Amino acid sequence: MDEEKAIYPTTIIIFGATGDLAKRKLFPAFYNLYIDGRMPEQFNIVALGRAENTDENFRNYIEENLEHFSRKKGTPRDWSGFRSHITYFQHQLDQESSYQALYQRLEDLDQEYGKRGNRLFYLSIGPNFIATISNHIKNTSLASDAEKDRIIIEKPFGHNKQSAIELNSLLAQTFEEEQIYRIDHYLGKETVQNILAFRFGNSIFEPLWKHKYIESVQITVAEEVGVETRGAFYEQTGALMDMVQNHLLQILCMVAMEPPASLESGEIRDRKVDVLKCIRRISPDQVDHYAVRGQYGKGMINGVESKGYRQEEGIAEDSNTETFAAVKFYLDNERWQNVPFYVRTGKKMKEKHSYITIQFKSLPHSTFSDSPHLLSANRLIINIQPMMDIRLQFMTKKPGLSLVLEPVEMIFDYFACQDDTPEAYETLLLDALLGDLTLFMRSDQVEEAWDVVKTIQESWGSNKDTSFPNYEAGSWGPKASEELVKRQGHKWV
Amino acid sequence: MDEEKAIYPTTIIIFGATGDLAKRKLFPAFYNLYIDGRMPEQFNIVALGRAENTDENFRNYIEENLEHFSRKKGTPRDWSGFRSHITYFQHQLDQESSYQALYQRLEDLDQEYGKRGNRLFYLSIGPNFIATISNHIKNTSLASDAEKDRIIIEKPFGHNKQSAIELNSLLAQTFEEEQIYRIDHYLGKETVQNILAFRFGNSIFEPLWKHKYIESVQITVAEEVGVETRGAFYEQTGALMDMVQNHLLQILCMVAMEPPASLESGEIRDRKVDVLKCIRRISPDQVDHYAVRGQYGKGMINGVESKGYRQEEGIAEDSNTETFAAVKFYLDNERWQNVPFYVRTGKKMKEKHSYITIQFKSLPHSTFSDSPHLLSANRLIINIQPMMDIRLQFMTKKPGLSLVLEPVEMIFDYFACQDDTPEAYETLLLDALLGDLTLFMRSDQVEEAWDVVKTIQESWGSNKDTSFPNYEAGSWGPKASEELVKRQGHKWV
Repeated sequence: MDEEKAIYPTTIIIFGATGDLAKRKLFPAFYNLYIDGRMPEQFNIVALGRAENTDENFRNYIEENLEHFSRKKGTPRDWSGFRSHITYFQHQLDQESSYQALYQRLEDLDQEYGKRGNRLFYLSIGPNFIATISNHIKNTSLASDAEKDRIIIEKPFGHNKQSAIELNSLLAQTFEEEQIYRIDHYLGKETVQNILAFRFGNSIFEPLWKHKYIESVQITVAEEVGVETRGAFYEQTGALMDMVQNHLLQILCMVAMEPPASLESGEIRDRKVDVLKCIRRISPDQVDHYAVRGQYGKGMINGVESKGYRQEEGIAEDSNTETFAAVKFYLDNERWQNVPFYVRTGKKMKEKHSYITIQFKSLPHSTFSDSPHLLSANRLIINIQPMMDIRLQFMTKKPGLSLVLEPVEMIFDYFACQDDTPEAYETLLLDALLGDLTLFMRSDQVEEAWDVVKTIQESWGSNKDTSFPNYEAGSWGPKASEELVKRQGHKWV
Repeated sequence: MDEEKAIYPTTIIIFGATGDLAKRKLFPAFYNLYIDGRMPEQFNIVALGRAENTDENFRNYIEENLEHFSRKKGTPRDWSGFRSHITYFQHQLDQESSYQALYQRLEDLDQEYGKRGNRLFYLSIGPNFIATISNHIKNTSLASDAEKDRIIIEKPFGHNKQSAIELNSLLAQTFEEEQIYRIDHYLGKETVQNILAFRFGNSIFEPLWKHKYIESVQITVAEEVGVETRGAFYEQTGALMDMVQNHLLQILCMVAMEPPASLESGEIRDRKVDVLKCIRRISPDQVDHYAVRGQYGKGMINGVESKGYRQEEGIAEDSNTETFAAVKFYLDNERWQNVPFYVRTGKKMKEKHSYITIQFKSLPHSTFSDSPHLLSANRLIINIQPMMDIRLQFMTKKPGLSLVLEPVEMIFDYFACQDDTPEAYETLLLDALLGDLTLFMRSDQVEEAWDVVKTIQESWGSNKDTSFPNYEAGSWGPKASEELVKRQGHKWV
């Protein structure tokens, strides 16, 4: 990474700057980068919104929200410095003239810089608008410099393989692949990034990282929240598209990938695509064997009654949308033959907890067969959130007069060493400013990931699950999820 | 292990019951076993001493010392119960009549039990008396039952290979090998016993436990104390005989041994002897290349001035006895080819610290070659004392915006789970009561261990080291010790 690049003057154009994401994540991330001295010396954030507004008003609105959402509080001086970089720009997404006016604004800023600055277009808007915006950017030559201009797009990247291909080809009319930053904020999380460091920065894990020693891999992303205000959107999405196709498959790629020769972004993205390509595709009649869907009914979470999904706002009374998905994947390659990768995600689960479990095989022969306690097989747990630690479970002699073994944990708490940890968006926005694509998804990754879930998606879309709702809010999902792993003699841990 | 055996009536006969070891270790160990309900229901401790004394007096003397040396305080009821099991017996080691009287005492106790009890002879005396005692025991038929009678012997077991063979053959005239418990208290330590559990109770360490992944093994037993009151004894011994031949080689065996098929004591002792047999023997002209000796001069320990070895009481002004020894061993077998096992031990070292370091190899290829920090190779540290923990050092992503790696430690503190941990002597005495020989040394182990150090011992014995004293009290030993490991590109850690 060439950190010098960050010094280059940059204009950040945020589409949807008055929206929720901008308020909660984007402005706080830029503000924290600013406090840390990681923003370019010359930069401007042009905040696009439909309504009329003044810079002053908009800056005040951002300031109020920073108080809630910013990781660092900063000094009054930090804020007064940062606010001067923000300008509001009234803009209609569908009007060419709006883009022409924006063109002029960007030109003016370049004049201030004394040179053509970098331009970072952040599309913090619904996927329906991507085509419109992209076409207008093209027609008005807003992003005319393939070296300097970049676009950041939020998921979902399409809603199936075909639409993803179409979206990618649409973007390709305006941008080179190297200009497109498809953001999956999970990849910006410290604990997720650490998977690479952990696997490839140490000599002792890689020899164990294969079917010979690993019994199964589990990836859980459990949310305690329900659909909240996103009901209408969620109805069209569901857990498979909203979580499995992106976050969970991306984490799976990092756990399963072959060692990259270098950290060069093309190399890492190649190794990830390799994983997606060798995930075993299934036929429609195998869907029930490999995948389980669920939808929450009412239940109790932390002693509070919680309504069912079908009772949420904007949800059909007979909704067939899954709020839980568990899938068993097999990777048909040398390293992972016959090792199931179980992934599961759900809303209104018992607790918010994202983690990876590497379950090692049992001892081939137990020297301690006389031990009154059964030996537990070793287990490595990488907690992603809210806990952020790595735990290695192993057997040790129970202190005492007899040679009795008991399982214990060795723990490395990721934040015992530093609690001043950047948010995922800070990491990813800085990478985008620096032009580092490693943590962003390439078009082929996105398309391949859609291909992986294609059969399940089509089957679930066309067949109603008559058992819905099939799990209580506050539980770990439907019973069938337990059975999915039990068939191979496993259990969720 | 058949715990039921412990219930069998047992008479414990302590030769040297008025000595230092009995006071500090043996009686406290029996007392703690008693409190824990691990002593046989019927047992008697017959304390042998040269002087006249009453049971009452001797019991009071033990009581006073328990206050200082017992791990558990116990209740008044515990003590009043325990004391009734102790009797004093005036005894002259070299008088046959004394043994005949002892015979009668043991018969009387058997009468109380209503059956012939087990007899455990504990020789807590200098090695010079072993022959005398053993012969008298034989002549007076004190240990006439090979199933029930056992003898515990403290190190040193001879002073070289030849004398060990002679001692073993002498003992063999009276005892079967299965009756002889050669005690090395290091093997009773929880953290040392745990090596077996750690290696063979887990599936993830054994695949790494070989030359392919391990760069070197280090075993350090550093003492802060000097020779104290043992000067005269130590002058005839030195670090090689006092520590390396027994404690350090025994620990090395546990680290290096092949997986035992079971915990059966014969099996484990076989695997240990295998290790000793394949330690590379060196020729006299290689001694300086493989071994370093040291003797402390004056220095500072914890801010306090400390005198040199030659100034200690009972030490010759030109003493050639080594108070420090470091040896490089190679094991000529498949598992350990070209992996140096460095062992070192010394008195008046910088701190009291016994530990094992498994230094893993560096990464074959570093994905993170751009990382500004050099990657440290993985390291497993097993702390034996005074810290009792296991530490795994590995690389992780330093929390922050860039992918920079830093070394961190995962720690399992052995006593976080239980601080109520038996002393080594408790473990070993209980094993002796139960007839479990696993943690005791077999004759061939002892002889083979002497054979391993033979060439060094002979060379050091016949060649004066003119550089003595060559390390300061309060240091980590002579400079040559650093060079010993540096030649292979290593350092003590």
